[in-house]
Amino acid sequence: MATPTPLLKDELDIVIPTIRNLDFLEMWRPFFQSYHLIIVQDGDPSKTIHVPEEFDYELYNRNDINRILGPKASCISFKDSACRCFGYMVSKKKYIYTIDDDCFVAKDPSGKDINALEQHIKNLLCPSTPHFFNTLYDPYREGADFVRGYPFSMREGAATAVSHGLWLNIPDYDAPTQLVKPRERNTRYVDAVMTIPKGTLFPMCGMNLAFNRELIGPAMYFGLMGDGQPIGRYDDMWAGWCTKVICDHLGLGIKTGLPYIWHSKASNPFVNLKKEYKGIYWQEEIIPFFQAVTLPKECTTVQQCYIELAKQVKEKLSNIDPYFTKLAEAMATWIEAWDELNPTGENLAKLSISNDKAK
Amino acid sequence: MATPTPLLKDELDIVIPTIRNLDFLEMWRPFFQSYHLIIVQDGDPSKTIHVPEEFDYELYNRNDINRILGPKASCISFKDSACRCFGYMVSKKKYIYTIDDDCFVAKDPSGKDINALEQHIKNLLCPSTPHFFNTLYDPYREGADFVRGYPFSMREGAATAVSHGLWLNIPDYDAPTQLVKPRERNTRYVDAVMTIPKGTLFPMCGMNLAFNRELIGPAMYFGLMGDGQPIGRYDDMWAGWCTKVICDHLGLGIKTGLPYIWHSKASNPFVNLKKEYKGIYWQEEIIPFFQAVTLPKECTTVQQCYIELAKQVKEKLSNIDPYFTKLAEAMATWIEAWDELNPTGENLAKLSISNDKAK
Repeated sequence: MATPTPLLKDELDIVIPTIRNLDFLEMWRPFFQSYHLIIVQDGDPSKTIHVPEEFDYELYNRNDINRILGPKASCISFKDSACRCFGYMVSKKKYIYTIDDDCFVAKDPSGKDINALEQHIKNLLCPSTPHFFNTLYDPYREGADFVRGYPFSMREGAATAVSHGLWLNIPDYDAPTQLVKPRERNTRYVDAVMTIPKGTLFPMCGMNLAFNRELIGPAMYFGLMGDGQPIGRYDDMWAGWCTKVICDHLGLGIKTGLPYIWHSKASNPFVNLKKEYKGIYWQEEIIPFFQAVTLPKECTTVQQCYIELAKQVKEKLSNIDPYFTKLAEAMATWIEAWDELNPTGENLAKLSISNDKAK
Repeated sequence: MATPTPLLKDELDIVIPTIRNLDFLEMWRPFFQSYHLIIVQDGDPSKTIHVPEEFDYELYNRNDINRILGPKASCISFKDSACRCFGYMVSKKKYIYTIDDDCFVAKDPSGKDINALEQHIKNLLCPSTPHFFNTLYDPYREGADFVRGYPFSMREGAATAVSHGLWLNIPDYDAPTQLVKPRERNTRYVDAVMTIPKGTLFPMCGMNLAFNRELIGPAMYFGLMGDGQPIGRYDDMWAGWCTKVICDHLGLGIKTGLPYIWHSKASNPFVNLKKEYKGIYWQEEIIPFFQAVTLPKECTTVQQCYIELAKQVKEKLSNIDPYFTKLAEAMATWIEAWDELNPTGENLAKLSISNDKAK
């Protein structure tokens, strides 16, 4: 009954933000080598990043980002892994997988190497179930199904926009938890994939994340973090809140669970605390905002939803800190830049009209 | 760091609905023998049910139910395992565990017998997280915690009212799925406990279920099923929908996942289809009703919530079938009977006043 997973070699880009040589790719070679990599170099652009041989890649440093986006480059963070979202924008593929350079191949309980990318593709290619909870987890998985009492009209499910993978070894903890539990390691392999229900927010981690760029790409903006900004380490959280709200509005699904990667090294909790501390209290207001936000019916594309969200962020979060006004503006800039680099039929028509006018 | 699980031997009753000798208890002896059992005998009351020696139990047959409840016995189903809820009503303990008599001790992946009851107690004694999703599952479990981005103000969690356990071997499928997949077995042990988020309904199965009677008992009514009723096999679903809506309203949590039991025997899918078929299309209207239902702020006890729900069921579901009018009335009768058998301080005062008047 099991059909082999399509590997989508021509339809998926792997996006890696980094400040160092990508030796970690050696371990991923059997799984990644036939894919195209988009490397977003963070920090000093004069530094050369070494990429192991025989990988097919394009690399963008800060100078490239500035050249390609011009003044709109202001929406791309610097000195923070939030810069990875530039890679989502320049990709021309349907699917994106993004992974941190301190993540290695994990083993399943039988000792076999986990092909994380294959599992993400499985997750993205089969539907989600955001409207009703299935107690036996993903009903589309081999050996599972919908349990008694699951409404039949909902069994077609929703298209899956995001696949959120997890981490063995070093869990994705905030600075306070890192400080309190320096020795805690995640050793529990939970053999499940599940849909995050509609109306429920989740903390989306960008370490091991895949998504359908066509369905949700423009919502995957990682915000303004790092250099010149008052916070860091909330880039993926920001993207997760926005993405979840928009997926809920558009009837798309988000899965979490398998695959695991092996997260090798905890970042410095003292440095993290400095980056996070504003986020830690700001999120107490941001999350109720996202829990309450509603998007008008007229918003039928991700871009429309995102622009509307930017407007509401400006209106309702700017009282927390002027940072949110700047962030709301960057959200709008991000969409402009996205549309410029990803002209759709409609956009192409507009471009051609303005080109005609320019003649 | 691990503290032993309190076993609550004086605070928990095990409720078992049955029509046959309880030989299955032999396998559960090491785990159940020190608890009190409440056996609800279904069907012919003249039949003698054999209970293995040295178990401490009370047994109620239909004659007992009629004698104890009088005319209110009409709310307790006959010839359907829904009758189990009578056991919840006569118990005087804080916690209930209910299990079907075709459920046996399962083994964990290491081959060790699973003490299902101990895991249920663990689930009930530690908080739930219904207001925000934690990607590493139950944050209160040994070796786990809240992940980065989980709001600190929500880390106290909510009191857990229900622990919903799962089934290895024969999964809890509806008749159509049983017919289509006669050989499917659940072999996947998912090592997780999780909270079902606020606002999300789930199909609650009564096969392996524990709850805090003080927190949610009066909502655990298993409806009118079986003899003289147009449906069966929706008893636990009905209880689950009502319970979830009331838990959400009262800020209580429901956990699902571990523990597993070994479900030995699939019920006959043809018989099941006959019992279920009305439920299968009715639920397409019932579920949107429960998804939309809101309870007024003034409802601060489970009883008040349940009476309000009965009112709304009568108003909004009676157009499906006259059955729902009868069910709504039975819901009200159930609460009356519950309060009669479980007088609270307030109820006791009322009783004493009416006794005084009667003098």
